[in-house]
Amino acid sequence: MNSSGVSTTEEPLPAPPGFPDIVAAADRLAGKAVVTPLLESQALNARAGGRILIKPEVLQRTGSFKFRGAYNRIGQIPPAQRAAGVVSYSSGNHAQGVAAAAALLDIPATIVMPADAPAIKIANTRGYGATVELYERASESREARAEVIAAELGATIVRPYDDPGIIAGQGTCGLEIANQAKQLGARLDALLVCCGGGGLTSGCAIVFAEMSPRTKVYAVEPEGFDDTRRSLESGERVSNAPGHDSFCDALLSPTPGALTFSVNRRLLAGGLAVSDAEVAAAMAYAFSTLKLVVEPGGAVSLAALLAGKIDARGRTLALTLSGGNVDPETHARAVATGSA
Amino acid sequence: MNSSGVSTTEEPLPAPPGFPDIVAAADRLAGKAVVTPLLESQALNARAGGRILIKPEVLQRTGSFKFRGAYNRIGQIPPAQRAAGVVSYSSGNHAQGVAAAAALLDIPATIVMPADAPAIKIANTRGYGATVELYERASESREARAEVIAAELGATIVRPYDDPGIIAGQGTCGLEIANQAKQLGARLDALLVCCGGGGLTSGCAIVFAEMSPRTKVYAVEPEGFDDTRRSLESGERVSNAPGHDSFCDALLSPTPGALTFSVNRRLLAGGLAVSDAEVAAAMAYAFSTLKLVVEPGGAVSLAALLAGKIDARGRTLALTLSGGNVDPETHARAVATGSA
Repeated sequence: MNSSGVSTTEEPLPAPPGFPDIVAAADRLAGKAVVTPLLESQALNARAGGRILIKPEVLQRTGSFKFRGAYNRIGQIPPAQRAAGVVSYSSGNHAQGVAAAAALLDIPATIVMPADAPAIKIANTRGYGATVELYERASESREARAEVIAAELGATIVRPYDDPGIIAGQGTCGLEIANQAKQLGARLDALLVCCGGGGLTSGCAIVFAEMSPRTKVYAVEPEGFDDTRRSLESGERVSNAPGHDSFCDALLSPTPGALTFSVNRRLLAGGLAVSDAEVAAAMAYAFSTLKLVVEPGGAVSLAALLAGKIDARGRTLALTLSGGNVDPETHARAVATGSA
Repeated sequence: MNSSGVSTTEEPLPAPPGFPDIVAAADRLAGKAVVTPLLESQALNARAGGRILIKPEVLQRTGSFKFRGAYNRIGQIPPAQRAAGVVSYSSGNHAQGVAAAAALLDIPATIVMPADAPAIKIANTRGYGATVELYERASESREARAEVIAAELGATIVRPYDDPGIIAGQGTCGLEIANQAKQLGARLDALLVCCGGGGLTSGCAIVFAEMSPRTKVYAVEPEGFDDTRRSLESGERVSNAPGHDSFCDALLSPTPGALTFSVNRRLLAGGLAVSDAEVAAAMAYAFSTLKLVVEPGGAVSLAALLAGKIDARGRTLALTLSGGNVDPETHARAVATGSA
């Protein structure tokens, strides 16, 4: 371990995907993933004082963008290896993406999930036909557990973000944003991306570096879990300090991915961090004004905008609402406290 | 009054709009109303056993389709009459549509609303700059109250549905559905429309009679307020019996509009009715699977589908989610009871 708490003895990194890999992923996903619309709300524009384009990945198959990467990655497993299945680990959205993609491709899936994941995410993952193995977030390593299972089955591990096929799949979300913004005659000054391990963020960054280099891409994270923001500032991957808590269950990864950060350090304009209270206010705004159900981790970009973490006045911004898999009680509580 | 409880001594009816009036309304609304997407959920398709296309008017400006008709109608008021303003009456969604449209056109608006309307609808109507006059639903006539105010101000009354300009505006929703379905390569067997006074339903029916006569158009209403369904069966306008209650506050009109019914009796395939419990289940489904916030009255079409009131197996259907203006408490309660 070095001083920043990140192991330096890792496997050599594969090359990150290039823009053509993302275009190829879009072809692979055609007819499987939803081309989610790019929405605009006059009420939000008026509040922000600029033009805001909203990419609601809550409308994506499985309720988050994660289906994109999972289907793209699993669809590239060679036929001879498919029968042994896939194994993955995830707090919930990647789990559902892998489960749904594997089911579509007729491949068995086993997912290691934290025992305290939202009930809706565990139930949905099982609903797509996957075998779910629960682990204790505090005392067990999900990666180690997944590796043991994969070794037993001879199965392929599908990582949540640090994989070129995953990053390319998530990048298709950025590709749609870039194309849809163009169709709307909008020149994007900035794009705010909800960021956990950095798969969606890096995929979008690769697209915008190619299609719209003027657009500044920001990673948005929960306070206390802003490892990407701090890593960008320090120039190397740093971990989150222990002792923090957040209800953004989808974004609690301990450190940026090695592969995703190799992209993000080159291409991002910076990182923004939001508090749980700001996230609850964004979920309430999404409920009352946008009429969209957004989970905590999916609302951080909107939270950053509404909390004034980025200046939108007179500018054109896009933001992702990256997932909507939230238990009814958590949602109702956030809407109630966020409206107050 | 005749035996069905509907006055027969009414003003002569104006002509209903034709298809060209709806095309003209779409031009008038361009850049003002949202072209809402036509969504498809693989999960809903699988559950219904057919192909279901969802028109989420919850994403429309003001959170319901009502902005379409209001803007189209108010935009046709002659310049000399604009300064005196508009007066309307509504349980809430038409109120917001009129208030927002009038504000955009710089015309003062007064809205007569029931004192027991959802707080969010009253607050939003005031938020758009309209003057709100509350009345008691049980003891007062909102039409009479509106007429007194209009006479005092010399203002134009903007009716919620029985007006050719309103019907043409709401018809633009149907026009979008027909065009978007065509782009998706879908031939619609049926269209389910949430129905109160019948403005949206008749507007859509006019469009489909022209563009896709094979598509059967159904009005969907709350049980006990299924006046359009029963009127279609009896061939003349009948009123709802007293003593019923429903939380579908947007759909509690006592009888079909004279003008809307003159269209609907010719063009509809029939009516469907759903219980409040079926509506709550649909709101819960919209929350958990579609990730859309839908108000009770906006969920009746989805409720009819999920409750099996129409056979979707092997067929292609479209349905409207016509509004999403619901108080957080009502929404949370419906999601909780509807999930059980």
